[in-house]
Amino acid sequence: MDLTHPAPPGYRRLDAPGIVALLAGVAAVAARLGGAPDGWTLREVSDGNLNVVWIAAGPAGSVCVKQAIPHVRRDESWRLPLDRAEYEVAWMRQVAPVAGRRIPALHHYDPALFAIVMENLSPHVILRQGFVQGRRFPLAAPAIGRYVADAAFATSDLALPFERKFASMARFARNEAILRITVDLILADPYRDSPRNRWTSPHLDAAAAAVRSDAALKLAAARLGHRFLTCTQALLHGDLHSGSVMVTETDTRVIDGEFALYGPIGFDLGAFLGNLLLAWFSQPGHESAPGERAEYRDWLAAQIPAFWTAFHDRFLELWRAGGAGDAYPASLFADAAAQAGLEAERARFVAGLFADMLGYAGLKMIRRILGYAHVADLEDIVDPARRAACEAPALACARRLMLDAAAFTSAADVQALLAP
Amino acid sequence: MDLTHPAPPGYRRLDAPGIVALLAGVAAVAARLGGAPDGWTLREVSDGNLNVVWIAAGPAGSVCVKQAIPHVRRDESWRLPLDRAEYEVAWMRQVAPVAGRRIPALHHYDPALFAIVMENLSPHVILRQGFVQGRRFPLAAPAIGRYVADAAFATSDLALPFERKFASMARFARNEAILRITVDLILADPYRDSPRNRWTSPHLDAAAAAVRSDAALKLAAARLGHRFLTCTQALLHGDLHSGSVMVTETDTRVIDGEFALYGPIGFDLGAFLGNLLLAWFSQPGHESAPGERAEYRDWLAAQIPAFWTAFHDRFLELWRAGGAGDAYPASLFADAAAQAGLEAERARFVAGLFADMLGYAGLKMIRRILGYAHVADLEDIVDPARRAACEAPALACARRLMLDAAAFTSAADVQALLAP
Repeated sequence: MDLTHPAPPGYRRLDAPGIVALLAGVAAVAARLGGAPDGWTLREVSDGNLNVVWIAAGPAGSVCVKQAIPHVRRDESWRLPLDRAEYEVAWMRQVAPVAGRRIPALHHYDPALFAIVMENLSPHVILRQGFVQGRRFPLAAPAIGRYVADAAFATSDLALPFERKFASMARFARNEAILRITVDLILADPYRDSPRNRWTSPHLDAAAAAVRSDAALKLAAARLGHRFLTCTQALLHGDLHSGSVMVTETDTRVIDGEFALYGPIGFDLGAFLGNLLLAWFSQPGHESAPGERAEYRDWLAAQIPAFWTAFHDRFLELWRAGGAGDAYPASLFADAAAQAGLEAERARFVAGLFADMLGYAGLKMIRRILGYAHVADLEDIVDPARRAACEAPALACARRLMLDAAAFTSAADVQALLAP
Repeated sequence: MDLTHPAPPGYRRLDAPGIVALLAGVAAVAARLGGAPDGWTLREVSDGNLNVVWIAAGPAGSVCVKQAIPHVRRDESWRLPLDRAEYEVAWMRQVAPVAGRRIPALHHYDPALFAIVMENLSPHVILRQGFVQGRRFPLAAPAIGRYVADAAFATSDLALPFERKFASMARFARNEAILRITVDLILADPYRDSPRNRWTSPHLDAAAAAVRSDAALKLAAARLGHRFLTCTQALLHGDLHSGSVMVTETDTRVIDGEFALYGPIGFDLGAFLGNLLLAWFSQPGHESAPGERAEYRDWLAAQIPAFWTAFHDRFLELWRAGGAGDAYPASLFADAAAQAGLEAERARFVAGLFADMLGYAGLKMIRRILGYAHVADLEDIVDPARRAACEAPALACARRLMLDAAAFTSAADVQALLAP
């Protein structure tokens, strides 16, 4: 593997005129914007770690352009291959039949520029920003729970003959550079010395050191990591935190599928749960008066069972309706006794997803406090002492989820963990 | 997918002159045989279900030629793609660095003819034939246990960075036609009506019907099947029964890797264990006087702990020595407390492999008694009543292994199941 990941010939980082030229060259996109290209307005809105994002608007409409660049956005020395855009497009195409409008519409993909032209989500906001601002989006958590159920079931061995599932798995298994980020930054770095780690210092120095010498926690992390690498239950989003969700009061969208891979369904569930929990723990840091966010915090806590129940109910609904997969094939469960056994097995299976969810939620929380990439929920708390006062109990919660998953039998148990 | 699997241009089924021409065209192979091609002797020794096999001998030595043919050997209507030969070669190449002489040496592969030229194992016999004849090969079971440990560890996330493991997994995930055989014939057919099923009739009619309506057993089969499809622990042989092992008193070889895939390690372990058990249950059918095979049977039973212990000890030895993999990374387990936790985790992990082994052993036994492909251990018992008298208790044992795996904590427990 060439670790310098040189950009291929024909690739160039697009500037505003380059974006206009790209869009003008695709008739359907140009028609969507309307008018003449010289009347289009361009605005860069790059926000994540890996790509540049532009919004282009014309008299008739707007589109979003997301281009992969050959390095981490804020660190040119951290080189990344561009092909992650191909995996994001492959993810969009594979989940679109069941996700429908819950992912952005794909208008065009330019394989030489590694540029995706897609629906501009407006007036949507990033769910994480909504959480920071204390805004309620009552449909979001249930919609994400239902999205995970739909996408996971449809790409699993419950729904697909193994030939189709294995072919898809083989494709996403090559998303190496992106998966290396997950493997290093989430599964390992927070639990060992790494120059990429950072935390609120000196406040959390002792807590970070404690994690690095916490044998039980490191073992739990390694066990979850091994499961991540060896459990190919379904095509995952792979990075389903609250920054990968865009919302309005009435609409919820999942974006940024470039981390897609076949893995344990609980990894996606845990990403969302972990970030709900980070939002909850961060709330006191955003108060201008003590208790100001108390009710909002309770609302956030209530999203935990709303999220899980939506997933749970939808996943079981889909499984009961049946699939064409090779796992638990319908031909083995025709009689009433077998049906009853299968229904018990479904409950056992989703209980396993629940336990996985808790463990991965803990992993996702810890990496956002002690690892490389942090979250606005906490980073926006300017006073480090105040931030650390939110982060320390979040770390303790994460540890408990990773070590004691078996002690939680329902989402209400997790919610209760947050009770005063 | 083209279900007719037409052979590609350039392919032809080799006859004796074709084999000679192939071998004569490869200088290193011709030198190995020695003399002039017109002095070579050819002998067809096809034995398995899927391929034709020839032995070519010259004055200096001999080689084995295995060619894929576009259908099941005894059923021209059951079409199969030829590329299984490529997967067998890929398996040989990937495990050779750790398997060494425990797999045949690969002399040449002809990709147009889908023909593998490899070491002729002589005077080796098929281990299954040895079992039928009541011959003891004291090194065989421990050697296979050790082989599974070496091959599984080396191809797992314990030893390989995920990039290498995922790339290999992606390749073997496309071994579709062969995997379809496993999925249908092993995981499903014996538990449902299928025109491919056959059994000793009418003696086992009721037992076969009981299996098809045994809700608990069908659920266990489906759970093992789901695990087979979603657990990518290591590169498996995929068909590691006693017919895939060739032995002498002092040498043990693993052949026929065309079923290779990433899957649960217990699947390979279970294949060998299940076939040891079938050998054990079949012994009374080969007696010319009652009790004639009693001691031999005890020897077979003793191979169960010999097999498992060899695997167990070698796998743990390799893991303790460390690997370069992303699972349980060494960087997380530097201190003494973490090391102690990891050692406990290793024990937990191999206990999981043991439970998987028992379940898959049961699956493998049932498919050989009620499914499409049977085994010489039982088929060679001409009298159907006598054969059924061996098969019925084997079915009961298989059921117990699949349903009560947790009740067995050691290989000695399994051996004890066979005590008078």
